[in-house]
Amino acid sequence: MTHQIKRYLPILNWGKRYDHTALTNDTIAAVIVTIMLIPQSLAYALLAGLPPEAGLYASIVPIILYSVFGTSSALAVGPVAVVSLMTAATLNNIVEQGTMGYAIAALSLAALSGVILLGMGLFRLGFVANFLSHPVIAGFITASGIIIAASQLKHVFGIEAEGHNLLQLAGSLIGELENLNPITTLIGASAIGFLFWVRKGLGQQLRKIGLGAGLSSTLVKAGPVGAVVLSTLAVWLLGLTEQGVQIVGHVPQSLPPLTMPDLSPTLLHQLLLPAFLISLIGFVESVSVAQTLAAKKRERIDPDQELIGLGAANIGAAFTGGFPVTGGFARSVVNFDAGAQTPAAGAFTAIGLAVAALLLTPLIYFLPKATLAATIIVAVLSLVDFSILKRAWAYSKADFIAVLSTMVLTLGFGVEVGVMAGVILSILMHLYKTSRPHIAEVGLIAGTEHFRNINRHTVQTHPDIVTLRVDESLYFANARYLEDQIQDRVADDEQVRHVILQCSAVNDIDLSALESLEMINLRLGEMGVTLHLSEVKGPVMDKLQAQHFVHELSGEIHLTQFAAIQHITANAN
Amino acid sequence: MTHQIKRYLPILNWGKRYDHTALTNDTIAAVIVTIMLIPQSLAYALLAGLPPEAGLYASIVPIILYSVFGTSSALAVGPVAVVSLMTAATLNNIVEQGTMGYAIAALSLAALSGVILLGMGLFRLGFVANFLSHPVIAGFITASGIIIAASQLKHVFGIEAEGHNLLQLAGSLIGELENLNPITTLIGASAIGFLFWVRKGLGQQLRKIGLGAGLSSTLVKAGPVGAVVLSTLAVWLLGLTEQGVQIVGHVPQSLPPLTMPDLSPTLLHQLLLPAFLISLIGFVESVSVAQTLAAKKRERIDPDQELIGLGAANIGAAFTGGFPVTGGFARSVVNFDAGAQTPAAGAFTAIGLAVAALLLTPLIYFLPKATLAATIIVAVLSLVDFSILKRAWAYSKADFIAVLSTMVLTLGFGVEVGVMAGVILSILMHLYKTSRPHIAEVGLIAGTEHFRNINRHTVQTHPDIVTLRVDESLYFANARYLEDQIQDRVADDEQVRHVILQCSAVNDIDLSALESLEMINLRLGEMGVTLHLSEVKGPVMDKLQAQHFVHELSGEIHLTQFAAIQHITANAN
Repeated sequence: MTHQIKRYLPILNWGKRYDHTALTNDTIAAVIVTIMLIPQSLAYALLAGLPPEAGLYASIVPIILYSVFGTSSALAVGPVAVVSLMTAATLNNIVEQGTMGYAIAALSLAALSGVILLGMGLFRLGFVANFLSHPVIAGFITASGIIIAASQLKHVFGIEAEGHNLLQLAGSLIGELENLNPITTLIGASAIGFLFWVRKGLGQQLRKIGLGAGLSSTLVKAGPVGAVVLSTLAVWLLGLTEQGVQIVGHVPQSLPPLTMPDLSPTLLHQLLLPAFLISLIGFVESVSVAQTLAAKKRERIDPDQELIGLGAANIGAAFTGGFPVTGGFARSVVNFDAGAQTPAAGAFTAIGLAVAALLLTPLIYFLPKATLAATIIVAVLSLVDFSILKRAWAYSKADFIAVLSTMVLTLGFGVEVGVMAGVILSILMHLYKTSRPHIAEVGLIAGTEHFRNINRHTVQTHPDIVTLRVDESLYFANARYLEDQIQDRVADDEQVRHVILQCSAVNDIDLSALESLEMINLRLGEMGVTLHLSEVKGPVMDKLQAQHFVHELSGEIHLTQFAAIQHITANAN
Repeated sequence: MTHQIKRYLPILNWGKRYDHTALTNDTIAAVIVTIMLIPQSLAYALLAGLPPEAGLYASIVPIILYSVFGTSSALAVGPVAVVSLMTAATLNNIVEQGTMGYAIAALSLAALSGVILLGMGLFRLGFVANFLSHPVIAGFITASGIIIAASQLKHVFGIEAEGHNLLQLAGSLIGELENLNPITTLIGASAIGFLFWVRKGLGQQLRKIGLGAGLSSTLVKAGPVGAVVLSTLAVWLLGLTEQGVQIVGHVPQSLPPLTMPDLSPTLLHQLLLPAFLISLIGFVESVSVAQTLAAKKRERIDPDQELIGLGAANIGAAFTGGFPVTGGFARSVVNFDAGAQTPAAGAFTAIGLAVAALLLTPLIYFLPKATLAATIIVAVLSLVDFSILKRAWAYSKADFIAVLSTMVLTLGFGVEVGVMAGVILSILMHLYKTSRPHIAEVGLIAGTEHFRNINRHTVQTHPDIVTLRVDESLYFANARYLEDQIQDRVADDEQVRHVILQCSAVNDIDLSALESLEMINLRLGEMGVTLHLSEVKGPVMDKLQAQHFVHELSGEIHLTQFAAIQHITANAN
């Protein structure tokens, strides 16, 4: 019982070992992460189409809940770029942006996503996320990054634009470009330039003037805070709102409010598929970050418990004015680098953000939206990586098709279509590949007991014995292919008296394949040809043992391929 | 060029070898098959909800076209039970039975199905049918047989009933049972009894009185003809139509008419999915019959060319008053047993049926529908086989779930839902199985170079070396599982310094898995653990060779597992 409770409440494990050192480390990490999270949270709320304070709220209670239920010591949970984009894409289809209904639907989406994650965790269904292949994720993230950057250009130019795929966005932006606001564009472009410079050049310069690597890196991470402070001051001091520069404006000074998501069946039904996709993408992103950071400290994370942690975090977001959240890469790495030792660091970050939400919001009244858009653009462009295309092309055409299709479909039709098409396509291509397995005809390499492909090696064969090695588990999708291949090989060659299937690469035989083997045995029998098996693996043999097939087999099951040939030739002489 | 033409026109191959013996054999077979096909064709038209002559028409031109394009010498193409049921289920959803539109929609369904089959053949997509696993087909055929039998009971009882699944049919039949026509029921029940007796007892009795096995078997096959003749005479002579016995009635004396299917986009759109399913099921049934018969004569059939043959047959059916057709099991076996030597036998059968359609239709005016229903019931009940459930349960739970679900869903929701659910379920279960592959930790069996599972055998291991053997190809669905498993094994065991992945059962590594291996390598590196591979297969090694991974690998790739252990322990000392 205690064990069960501890599994679902990891806090009980690390909590009792908590000491002064851990407290110090966690507090320092929390201060650094808090500073970095303020502009990021505001920006992702903007991306999700929500008021800026929603970004702060979404970073407070969810972090605390994750620190109770999650297993990673470094993961920082909150709004992230791709999930915020998916949130906007979903909600814009259902309710009008800027309305009360929009913010409430965001709560519903978080609630539904939380329940899905929690359910998957309790039923240990984390493996479902495995069907998002790496190329599909890479293609999806790159395409999403482009869409996100394009969607933020309107704030940089100070114009209106709409769209959930690249075509819509590009058309909308080009049509509105004549209304471009020069001052806004100047602020946005400067912020983008500044942030790129901070990323690429600042660290090196700081180290040149003698700062330590750690401090330099922290200052670089604080770049967005610098851009926020500088541009806010500029707008305030120069009175740029009168030039039409859009600002964040009034943000309530408040702790996260208690909110109630709309749980009407109609809305939940509309949100179900998007919530599922958001949950999957969020979970995959979060787990891969958590795994990477855990390995650095030889720790373990439990993916199914992570689902529970993220589920709790999202349900927390739903009831405290937030929107869907997950473990973010950038913030988690900062947290880790800053020395976070336990999930308590997350809780301390939450306290920092709560203080900010309560006290600092008046200070961002004059923060231009163009600056927030700039921080998003610079952040997401680092996700854009076309090298996966080149890599996939060089490694495997099937993977290339998956990544290219995911990218093109995401760019052309939006995130939902893109990710679903990617998943379905990778499954279909995997099935296609395994449905036509590599089947080698093999012969004996003289002087050894090894059998190799007759097309690749000089081998000894017997005219009346054909040995085929199937390099794949036998299952329904390739069972009939095997029937065809054997029929083709044997029907034309009157000399053949024995067929041996070398099963060294056969990890499983399902019922369809068993019935195909029975059929092959029967048909070969009709032609006067004997069927043998060799090198059948233990677990496969265990399954076959109880079947009629073993008794009906016209030949025998031999321990090794060499023994099979010896036995057959000995009997023939 | 000639080769290309011959591939698509197999008739050019066997046509030039055609001689007197072949002619005699084919003619005899054709006479026997013709007699058997007359009642069967009428009955399946009834099952499809069409006038009886449609069954004859569907057996004439399609057979001739198949004999030109098909590759099987024994396959007899025409209406079959399951496809006729699927036709009825499809059309009843769209148009009212008995109307002109119903018959025309049947033509459209045949045309669409023909185009789909032809297209799949030209693009060599026959492998798609492999995704219908044996258990799914077995479950589907059994459930369809039950539905077909239930759907024919209304004719046996002389009542009205509707429904496309067992629940609807049972409810409808029970509600109408009070209107049962006693004379019709007597005819139907007698016919069923007679046909069962012919099947089970007649052959033995005939052989007892000295008839040859061949002749006995032929007479048994002619049983339905006997039932047709006897019951028609009874109705005619006793004037039973006045007792309310439903008869076939007027059937036009005509060769197959030239007909035009309705090709309006709305209708084709509605028919697309059903046509696809009908094509798949029909193709699978046909190819497995053709393969079985071909093997008996050491012949080959080409599945992709079979698609073309069946496609042509269905298009032929669409333009000559038929409905969807495929290669039937019963008629093909009769054709084969009767000695058909080439596809010409099929063409001769077509001539026989054309003569019947032209001259004999007045003779079946008084044929009671109850008799036709009885021939269907007896024929399909031989398809019903629940033993597959027992077999699947004993062999593999995944297959059991697939077959049970297909049966239950087909019975409960009809043929389309049943077969689609079966296909999707078997794919998902296959993916689930391969997503959690068997991973064995192995050690050396003393005195050998063999490595086996440490849980099954007494083996030698080293405390600082962990060897894992993954019994599955590495691909996206199990890549992350492998990451987890290795992390779990190593994170808890401080002694581990080397991890070896024995890849003897790994037939492929896709890009996702390659990236997971890179990640594993990186993470193990962070823990101070070296990653090695052993026994990587040739084709996999070819793919890996060009990748950074080979250079970045902290350990080495060893030819054999034994060499890996020797190398690592030698370096350690």
